[in-house]
Amino acid sequence: MEGEIAMEKKKMKVLIIGGVATGPKAAARLRRLNPEAEITIIERGKILSYAGCGMPYYVSGDVLDCQSLSSTSAGVLRDSVFFRNVKDVNVLDRTLARSIDRKNRTVDIVNVETGESDVLPYDKLVLATGGQPIALPIEGAGLNKVFRLYQPEDAIAMREVVAAGNPRTAVIIGGGMIGVEMAEALTRLGLHVKIAEMMPHILPGLFDGEVAAYLTRYIRSQGVDVLTGSRVTEILGDDEGNVTKVITPCAEIPSDIVLIAIGVRPNTKLAQEAGLEIGKTGGIVVNEYLQTSDPDIYAGGDCVENVHLITAEKVFVPLGSTANRHGRVIANNIMGYKEKFKGVLGTGVVKVFDYNVGKTGLTECQAREAGFDAVTTLCPATDNAHYYPTHKPVLLKLIADRKTKKILGLQAVGFGETVKRVDVIATALSFGATVDDLPGLDLGYAPPYSTAVDISAHAANILRNKIEGIAKALTPMQVKGKIDRDEDFIWLDVRTPAEYKKERIEDPRVKLIPLGMFRQRLNELPRDKEIITFCKLSLRGYEAQRILDGEGYPDVKFMDGGLEAWPYGVAGDAASKPSHQESSIRLRAA
Amino acid sequence: MEGEIAMEKKKMKVLIIGGVATGPKAAARLRRLNPEAEITIIERGKILSYAGCGMPYYVSGDVLDCQSLSSTSAGVLRDSVFFRNVKDVNVLDRTLARSIDRKNRTVDIVNVETGESDVLPYDKLVLATGGQPIALPIEGAGLNKVFRLYQPEDAIAMREVVAAGNPRTAVIIGGGMIGVEMAEALTRLGLHVKIAEMMPHILPGLFDGEVAAYLTRYIRSQGVDVLTGSRVTEILGDDEGNVTKVITPCAEIPSDIVLIAIGVRPNTKLAQEAGLEIGKTGGIVVNEYLQTSDPDIYAGGDCVENVHLITAEKVFVPLGSTANRHGRVIANNIMGYKEKFKGVLGTGVVKVFDYNVGKTGLTECQAREAGFDAVTTLCPATDNAHYYPTHKPVLLKLIADRKTKKILGLQAVGFGETVKRVDVIATALSFGATVDDLPGLDLGYAPPYSTAVDISAHAANILRNKIEGIAKALTPMQVKGKIDRDEDFIWLDVRTPAEYKKERIEDPRVKLIPLGMFRQRLNELPRDKEIITFCKLSLRGYEAQRILDGEGYPDVKFMDGGLEAWPYGVAGDAASKPSHQESSIRLRAA
Repeated sequence: MEGEIAMEKKKMKVLIIGGVATGPKAAARLRRLNPEAEITIIERGKILSYAGCGMPYYVSGDVLDCQSLSSTSAGVLRDSVFFRNVKDVNVLDRTLARSIDRKNRTVDIVNVETGESDVLPYDKLVLATGGQPIALPIEGAGLNKVFRLYQPEDAIAMREVVAAGNPRTAVIIGGGMIGVEMAEALTRLGLHVKIAEMMPHILPGLFDGEVAAYLTRYIRSQGVDVLTGSRVTEILGDDEGNVTKVITPCAEIPSDIVLIAIGVRPNTKLAQEAGLEIGKTGGIVVNEYLQTSDPDIYAGGDCVENVHLITAEKVFVPLGSTANRHGRVIANNIMGYKEKFKGVLGTGVVKVFDYNVGKTGLTECQAREAGFDAVTTLCPATDNAHYYPTHKPVLLKLIADRKTKKILGLQAVGFGETVKRVDVIATALSFGATVDDLPGLDLGYAPPYSTAVDISAHAANILRNKIEGIAKALTPMQVKGKIDRDEDFIWLDVRTPAEYKKERIEDPRVKLIPLGMFRQRLNELPRDKEIITFCKLSLRGYEAQRILDGEGYPDVKFMDGGLEAWPYGVAGDAASKPSHQESSIRLRAA
Repeated sequence: MEGEIAMEKKKMKVLIIGGVATGPKAAARLRRLNPEAEITIIERGKILSYAGCGMPYYVSGDVLDCQSLSSTSAGVLRDSVFFRNVKDVNVLDRTLARSIDRKNRTVDIVNVETGESDVLPYDKLVLATGGQPIALPIEGAGLNKVFRLYQPEDAIAMREVVAAGNPRTAVIIGGGMIGVEMAEALTRLGLHVKIAEMMPHILPGLFDGEVAAYLTRYIRSQGVDVLTGSRVTEILGDDEGNVTKVITPCAEIPSDIVLIAIGVRPNTKLAQEAGLEIGKTGGIVVNEYLQTSDPDIYAGGDCVENVHLITAEKVFVPLGSTANRHGRVIANNIMGYKEKFKGVLGTGVVKVFDYNVGKTGLTECQAREAGFDAVTTLCPATDNAHYYPTHKPVLLKLIADRKTKKILGLQAVGFGETVKRVDVIATALSFGATVDDLPGLDLGYAPPYSTAVDISAHAANILRNKIEGIAKALTPMQVKGKIDRDEDFIWLDVRTPAEYKKERIEDPRVKLIPLGMFRQRLNELPRDKEIITFCKLSLRGYEAQRILDGEGYPDVKFMDGGLEAWPYGVAGDAASKPSHQESSIRLRAA
């Protein structure tokens, strides 16, 4: 591979604009491939090559020193001296790239501290200009103690204000990934946090409503107020310009600090002014080799759009992991390797207090929008063997295409190990796996790590049963719709009386026949009514549906996910706490 | 799918011999597919449908009640009453199947308690007769307090003896998965444990030598003596028939209890006597529908052989997960679904104290035996972002085929999250992934869960570099070989002086030039000698190799896995403890 192409490129000049993720990655890889190229990184800020995703953990105090976010694992700061001595890469920090002259292949730069300007030539140019926080176009967004979390300086400022000790309440505008991470961080620092999310539920890009509801129930149990459908219209301050209140159409929320985290948009000004093509998503258009519409200019990271591997549509999904992958692919292609960056799956994982939360592929909502006939299952389960003491509850939602049986996506939340399942499904999705493939995977099994049939395979088996018409289910939302429409049906709880006493749905339609007595008491069930079975998880509910099917009952379904996934509240001895939480607390004490 | 085939089979008689994993799984699935079949399970023991893999955790006390191993997650015991009432399945326990009359389609059975016998007819027969411990054909194997861990009764007996309080020392014969699990269990119960393994290293089916060495170093640090290459020749007892000593050619080891865990062989007596085909591995031969050489007789679980998905060879890999998967596939095929069981990857995971340990696919040794030109990397790393406090060390060994670039296998050990990586690679292996595919996977990234480029992708990138000739490495074993042959070379440590002080290899060939000063001090390195670079992990070692390559040095390699994977001992301030352990302990305190 280091043949002809590489050799003639040895003396090339490579300019890289942006020194956070894609840029340094491309530079380092390029140097390893090409010892003689002249490589220069131009970075507007002072801090280079930092892990932006680590900023919430600096604010929370989990990360003690902000410098560690821009240090190697051996503890060496990746500053311009490091890049010079170790990587033989020039870094011009505090330097702004003002314009690109594509004809003459030069970039006009200016040092933002000294005002000195220069014009640098390039053979290949890499745009790694990143994203920038979406501005909130309302009154008061510029008040003191209204933060964004964009660069390390923001995190440092926020931590300083919190450390100074006066803020007691915080409003986070935006319930996305940064929003929920920061809700945890600020709560653990002793603040009372409210999340104001404009959409009907938090994390709308990651989750469908019922999964978001399960997560929201938990976040609330940690003391965070979650206000959904709440568009912030104004932020008020005092005479000194410090924030005091956040205003929504329904509420005035007193707040000592505010974080605006409503997302990121690609930073494309430079590209746009240079006449490079910008896509519908707002990101720079790149081909599969990450070349822009000018083949000598590459772009990667948060400033470009990506191809979604399932829909083949262009999407804007800014992530640190993608940015790093881009950097390497760009370096390889500059050196003539012809490596393709195939696309993304919209995978996202996030820690929210003690919940592990993640998604890959499409949500049900996204799948239907993309035209798929989505079949779904809500699958509450324990992440490893139920008899092993560390097992913890999780809720999976697996989605497939009814026609092709292809997996479309997974959502997973809970105390238990969800991220492993997200990664397994992300891997399977990359290879176009179907619901029939998943149960055939030879995944690792031992009681501390999984169940004999892993829950991802279990969820796939439920989807197979649904596609084949063996399992018939309604989602909790569909059942709630029937109740709201005052429909008549038998709502058959097949748990034990003890479980019923502990928590139950109080509704006149509910009838209790434990599964163990089911076959003997069938005569209590009329054949001319719709029957909706359920239990705690839906395993016994499904079993009951199959028994009734076998007995010739014409209209039987089970309620997907059982009580565990029922987000509309339960009664009973344990009803003060959501069941999934209560059981987890017990487990953690064990 | 529930069409014609299913309907004509409704009244069929299905006999299942074996009530542990495959059998009950097949029965339950069959009942859900077919409400009218007559389903009978014949089980020799008293305890049904139990999680055999949970037995070490019953002995250790992690699992308080042995019944929980055979209970549903809702806490209901899966006994014969449960199978009758809930599953409508007959169970004949304490019953032995003595012979199969294939011509008349009957099975001759006898109740082992009452001696009553019977002849049961079948339309379809399922053999789920499991495995049985390999006997140790030596004197003393039958003494008191010499245990096997075969069925719940064994675990109960062992726990009783330990609870009675007198045993202080234990010898475990066999360093396989059960051996290391039980070493942990017994150590935590206060016993001093010695493992006697006949092969040159423990877990020979899971690991190559250097990975086993890394694990062994840790197991020893937990107080367990690991004796490899130790074939036990005799077990001695006292006048009362209680074990006292275990004898190997090199040692007499006093021991209060002994566990023989040298593996399992398929239980095929019944199948063999019925004239069914038995494979070279000793397991019952089944086709991809899990039919034996008699199409009306299915077999699954620990009594059959499987196809290895990489080599296409028949293998005997008895695992609870495979047994459960078999059960479902058998039921589907009995009902006419024509579902294929494609095969296994030899995936295995096991918890060893606080190490998470696993493997999927082939080891290097297995790969070479199978004729592959294996390219490998030893990759020590942290499992998540190094600045995030919960990160922990792991060692990965990834193996690929040089010609096709296909991934062949992964070994992973350490305090950190290794099982997720095993599952990701197992999934990728199932789809024939290459080293080029892995870095393209859109895996979940957040600092608590992974690094921006996941370590599995990082390992794949190293393999790509090796295949492409960019990275040139020697394994620690190869370097050790050179030293043993007294070869001359420069052994170039590129870490910082502080790291060197803390731990170092003491050898006259070693020369320290920190990477940060490397480009300035190149003149200190002769061009006519072989140079082998290394650092802690091998990242900087690789960087140094690339720099020297770029400078035209003709013979430079880095040492794979750096000091972290060097199993032959180090000197220095931290040398009393293996570095990976020391750093972990620090992390855990953080």
